[in-house]
Amino acid sequence: MKLATLKNGRPDGLLVVVSADLTRFVSAGRIAPDLQAAIDDWQVVAPQLSALAEQLDAGAISGQPFDPATALAPLPRAYQWIDGSGYLSHLERVRSLKGSKDEELQSTRPLLYQGGSDSLSAPADPIIATDPELAIDFEAEIAVIIDAVPMGATREQAAAAIRLITVCNDVSLRRLVLDDLQNGFGFFHSKPSTAFAPIVVTPDSLGDVWRDNRLHLPVRIEVNGTLYGQPNAGTDVHFDFADLIVEAARTRRLAAGTIIGGGTVSNRHDESLPIKRDGIGFACIAEARTVEKLKYGRARTPFLKAGDVVRIGAISEGQSVFGDIEQTVTLA
Amino acid sequence: MKLATLKNGRPDGLLVVVSADLTRFVSAGRIAPDLQAAIDDWQVVAPQLSALAEQLDAGAISGQPFDPATALAPLPRAYQWIDGSGYLSHLERVRSLKGSKDEELQSTRPLLYQGGSDSLSAPADPIIATDPELAIDFEAEIAVIIDAVPMGATREQAAAAIRLITVCNDVSLRRLVLDDLQNGFGFFHSKPSTAFAPIVVTPDSLGDVWRDNRLHLPVRIEVNGTLYGQPNAGTDVHFDFADLIVEAARTRRLAAGTIIGGGTVSNRHDESLPIKRDGIGFACIAEARTVEKLKYGRARTPFLKAGDVVRIGAISEGQSVFGDIEQTVTLA
Repeated sequence: MKLATLKNGRPDGLLVVVSADLTRFVSAGRIAPDLQAAIDDWQVVAPQLSALAEQLDAGAISGQPFDPATALAPLPRAYQWIDGSGYLSHLERVRSLKGSKDEELQSTRPLLYQGGSDSLSAPADPIIATDPELAIDFEAEIAVIIDAVPMGATREQAAAAIRLITVCNDVSLRRLVLDDLQNGFGFFHSKPSTAFAPIVVTPDSLGDVWRDNRLHLPVRIEVNGTLYGQPNAGTDVHFDFADLIVEAARTRRLAAGTIIGGGTVSNRHDESLPIKRDGIGFACIAEARTVEKLKYGRARTPFLKAGDVVRIGAISEGQSVFGDIEQTVTLA
Repeated sequence: MKLATLKNGRPDGLLVVVSADLTRFVSAGRIAPDLQAAIDDWQVVAPQLSALAEQLDAGAISGQPFDPATALAPLPRAYQWIDGSGYLSHLERVRSLKGSKDEELQSTRPLLYQGGSDSLSAPADPIIATDPELAIDFEAEIAVIIDAVPMGATREQAAAAIRLITVCNDVSLRRLVLDDLQNGFGFFHSKPSTAFAPIVVTPDSLGDVWRDNRLHLPVRIEVNGTLYGQPNAGTDVHFDFADLIVEAARTRRLAAGTIIGGGTVSNRHDESLPIKRDGIGFACIAEARTVEKLKYGRARTPFLKAGDVVRIGAISEGQSVFGDIEQTVTLA
């Protein structure tokens, strides 16, 4: 089934069930007021939501037209947002920029950081920056929302806790990344609000493209209508979502509703921007720039500036599976 | 007024008003189901809670006996937990252990890290560790719960957003701190669940001991009944809570219900453990050990082991203002 959270003037929004083709929705408010409440009581709530989805898809309920512009992030505020590093080629490409230290360690154990989860951006929210000189970048990622996971969880427990899947844009202020890394206290200032696609989907509804704890779909990224990348999120995965959850639960339990990011999707290739129509490209500007530095001696692709529009979506058979994130850069 | 969250089998517990002398409580469930709901709607809810507190204190409502053992953390799960570094003498004492880099930067701008806020420990919850060799330590801190703060907030906006004050124990696994610092991605594994005192208090109810955006009270720490420290949280403050909030909001807004920690309370002195009856001592073991290394050539005070009991409380006129945190170390 497919779920979304619509704006209703309250911080947590209204939970709705969306039709398989993303054109219609019906309120799920009588089953659970919001997505966190649904996850808190998933064993009871999920079958009811699923039944509602079947009625909607069968046409037994006509529903209302679904407009992604009315959606909040599926969890507009979450109790936890942990971002991992599943794709080593992302780390390899940006390492020189980031000054991060231990290559061997990073390939043995996934890096994780604790992101700010108190205000997650809606898919059409602007990227608000206080200063254009902060080197504003996007990072297109797959994210999962999980049920509660005990401390010291096994891979099996971790995999079984994955409830919902979507894509997100881990907005990054590259000029502040190095400061944050040098302080050693985490990406506090360099990672403003992460944005999420409007739709979350259960693993079973994704069918064959969700297997081995990863999403086997390309994530398409455009900036001002120009294709920057369409790397496949199921390719070149060094740590899958079960690995990331196990690592996150190493010294503490994870509450229901925790969001885990898989890291910037990144495939191994020798391309640079602009890419061809069938090229792979990049899911963040920093990677493209590092490649350009090595190839041409200097970075050519600029970071985002005010007015730029970033569009991110996972694509299956030409359709956006979770709806698109489409954000415009705005200076505060 | 004084508020607490009691266990009721639900993740967010039940909001109650506690009498000024901490002996009695009355449910506030008809005003707001839980503390987050109260903070979400503070302008409407706070006057009603305050009126209830007056009735309880005047004896117009008899209430029920308040037992801190029935309390959860005031926010058992929060949307954000940011820990700051208000006391430079803590950083100075532990810097050699932690391998953190930039002294000058740290005195100009407070360090902050994003803590895990998805499962905050109750005051009497055990400190659960998977391995006794992780060098289990406590950190006694003052914490504030704030209302929403815009990105780029001023000191005045920051100070005005402080709604509630309490103490917390930022449990730390020292052996993992260095790894986390070297990764540069933040204290992910080294900071398991932070514990909170049972009571939160509004600034106006604290009277004169809350001024200049800091709490002018000693925080008393005992381990197995032995006094380890009673540093004054209002002394040697380099960054007050307004400073910490301004820094936290530098590149992003902070949602209502964000918890900000002031950092390990630390006063400048030349003592070492054991301290005298009127000594100042330490609010974490790491500081005591660093002083011992310098003084005696080796650390003598052990980190916590299974069965050890840590008690932390802010003291005013012999009374524990927020109730005590009292945690027993337990191996998983």
